[in-house]
Amino acid sequence: MQDWKTLFASRARRMTASEIRELLKLLDQPDMISFAGGIPDAGLFPAEAFETAYRELFANGQHLSALQYSVSEGYMPLRSWIVRHMGSLGVPCNEDNILITSGAQQALDYLGKLFITAGDRAIVGWPTYLGALQAFNAYEPAYEQLDLAGATEHAAPAKFIYTTADFANPSGQTLTLAERNALLDQAEARGMAVIEDAPYQALRYEGEALPSLLALDVARCGGIENARTIFCGSFSKTLSPGLRLGWICAPTPVIQQLVLTKQAADLNSATINQMVMTTVAERCFDAHVDMIRKVYKERRDAMLQALDRYMPAGVTWNRPEGGMFLWLELPSGADAGELLQSAIQSAKVAYVPGHAFFADGSGRNTLRLSFTACGPEKIEEGVRRLAKVFAKDFSLAA
Amino acid sequence: MQDWKTLFASRARRMTASEIRELLKLLDQPDMISFAGGIPDAGLFPAEAFETAYRELFANGQHLSALQYSVSEGYMPLRSWIVRHMGSLGVPCNEDNILITSGAQQALDYLGKLFITAGDRAIVGWPTYLGALQAFNAYEPAYEQLDLAGATEHAAPAKFIYTTADFANPSGQTLTLAERNALLDQAEARGMAVIEDAPYQALRYEGEALPSLLALDVARCGGIENARTIFCGSFSKTLSPGLRLGWICAPTPVIQQLVLTKQAADLNSATINQMVMTTVAERCFDAHVDMIRKVYKERRDAMLQALDRYMPAGVTWNRPEGGMFLWLELPSGADAGELLQSAIQSAKVAYVPGHAFFADGSGRNTLRLSFTACGPEKIEEGVRRLAKVFAKDFSLAA
Repeated sequence: MQDWKTLFASRARRMTASEIRELLKLLDQPDMISFAGGIPDAGLFPAEAFETAYRELFANGQHLSALQYSVSEGYMPLRSWIVRHMGSLGVPCNEDNILITSGAQQALDYLGKLFITAGDRAIVGWPTYLGALQAFNAYEPAYEQLDLAGATEHAAPAKFIYTTADFANPSGQTLTLAERNALLDQAEARGMAVIEDAPYQALRYEGEALPSLLALDVARCGGIENARTIFCGSFSKTLSPGLRLGWICAPTPVIQQLVLTKQAADLNSATINQMVMTTVAERCFDAHVDMIRKVYKERRDAMLQALDRYMPAGVTWNRPEGGMFLWLELPSGADAGELLQSAIQSAKVAYVPGHAFFADGSGRNTLRLSFTACGPEKIEEGVRRLAKVFAKDFSLAA
Repeated sequence: MQDWKTLFASRARRMTASEIRELLKLLDQPDMISFAGGIPDAGLFPAEAFETAYRELFANGQHLSALQYSVSEGYMPLRSWIVRHMGSLGVPCNEDNILITSGAQQALDYLGKLFITAGDRAIVGWPTYLGALQAFNAYEPAYEQLDLAGATEHAAPAKFIYTTADFANPSGQTLTLAERNALLDQAEARGMAVIEDAPYQALRYEGEALPSLLALDVARCGGIENARTIFCGSFSKTLSPGLRLGWICAPTPVIQQLVLTKQAADLNSATINQMVMTTVAERCFDAHVDMIRKVYKERRDAMLQALDRYMPAGVTWNRPEGGMFLWLELPSGADAGELLQSAIQSAKVAYVPGHAFFADGSGRNTLRLSFTACGPEKIEEGVRRLAKVFAKDFSLAA
């Protein structure tokens, strides 16, 4: 029998199974309440619009091209819709600035591939999106912690800063305008790119929208071709993740190299999905996003109220203005990873422990709660159960 | 303005635009006859079966999961269909041996990622599938030319042999049983994996089917878990490339590591596509493949007849038993790349020059003709035009 490990590339050592993924496999039990998955509520997908779009595509004879290979850049009408969408976000651009990807996750994979030679430095927040670390790990970077107040002289060269400016996963945090400017200043001073991961950008429930990093960059430097920010968008949190569609908006030289990357990696994102998504986005993006914003706001509020009501002293959390996640800190010394076992097994409630989101494995007393997957009653019940588990643990520790 | 080249990873130097791709953009002219694209005839897709499958999915309420995220391994019923399909090819296996990919191209990208650290040796044929070279190039291998008669003692370590056993792209070549055994012997002697790229496997038009490399390997070593061959299958040449679905069949330790690779790279292949493809494959795979085999055989025969009839002396070609391609050799000294310009511009006929398929850039007097995209009359007319271009060039050279 072949010893496969001896044949695998060195990067395989950094691509390991997460222990929490194994625990989360237990979630398929009937009365489990899960705040773990970072997934939208399937009941809110615009199912009728999709059904109609598929039906019309076959009725109109568009299926001949829909079932065929297509260009690596992506379906032109979808790129045109995205150009208009980016324009509405303060980013004037054209179709040459857009690449269609199979979700924003694929964008992160391609950007890791494009920028990172093994050992190159990449700057990320502590905590940051676990999927970004997984995507980049395949290219073997060294991570540096993002420090917006840090000095830029004598800093080692780095390829990019990766960040989510609005309602970040896992922390729910939003960068202030001053922080956005400081981030762009730092990127400019060190000659780095900025990768702006913006899957939750449309999901704002209160407060005023701030310009995306790319919009700010474009305003500062006079146009997208002069910008250093690469924007990763996604349809997964607004219309549907099941079609696997997202996009990259960036200066032309970056898109051109990414087109070659995509051509070599999977030729093109599914043609029929791009055509159907175009129809659905054109017909109902704004109205649909308005609707889900209302529903998710209600759920966020329900979770905040339940936390206020049930959580024992010593547990703190934030109040994100949008997105899908709340971020909890337990008293130092508590271990959210260990507590997950009893939460799932005795209280039948699940979350994601925070330490997986720290590139250095710290953050053991933190955890992420997603408030999008279930309704207000279940949210209250789940938080009540969770609070009991935590209260018992703290009283044992005291 | 950012000088992006200074930020790109070293691999970007090996990911360059092909000059032929630029030429082939001219193909959208009305009376152009193209033998260039390696694409199936869209008119032959089982459109009704797809239309029905989409309609039923929404009618049955399956759209809730179809529009949602799903597991990285792939949709279980599709993996089960593939297990039965692989069984029919002489490969007993189970669902743990199957990963769903977004086409076989993605399989090649993931396998490059899994096996190649920069500088590692990969063995390929001269010529070989250009898309495989493009996929692997991103991981910066060194290529060695496959030599089935070569000595294995003192050979430098290499990670894998990449090959297509049936009706290879671009050459149309099929390995004999003796060659298949020699290839497995060599892989065993040198402790390498074998990557078997099998997108055309079902498209045999005459002659007897030989066991795939994986089937042969399994028969030799007693079971898939002992095998060293990794089989890449695809629905693109049989049912539809527009849904971007293929698979990898391999020993469990390889699949497990590839699941982590996929999770980090794009989470999962589009859920709705996997569900619809399952329905269509279950209902009509065999009957549909029987039908397209008949049509493509007729086209292959039409091209062979036209070549016999029109091509000037000094041009030679093969007679593949299946697949999509014929391989032509012009007299040495002729340059199929240079001739393409006048073929497209004056004769309005296109093909792919062969040298792009050689990892060392040799093969200037070779070219690939695809016989699947148009009917027998167009094929005859296109070959007639092409023969004129070649005849004129040779007479000038003489």
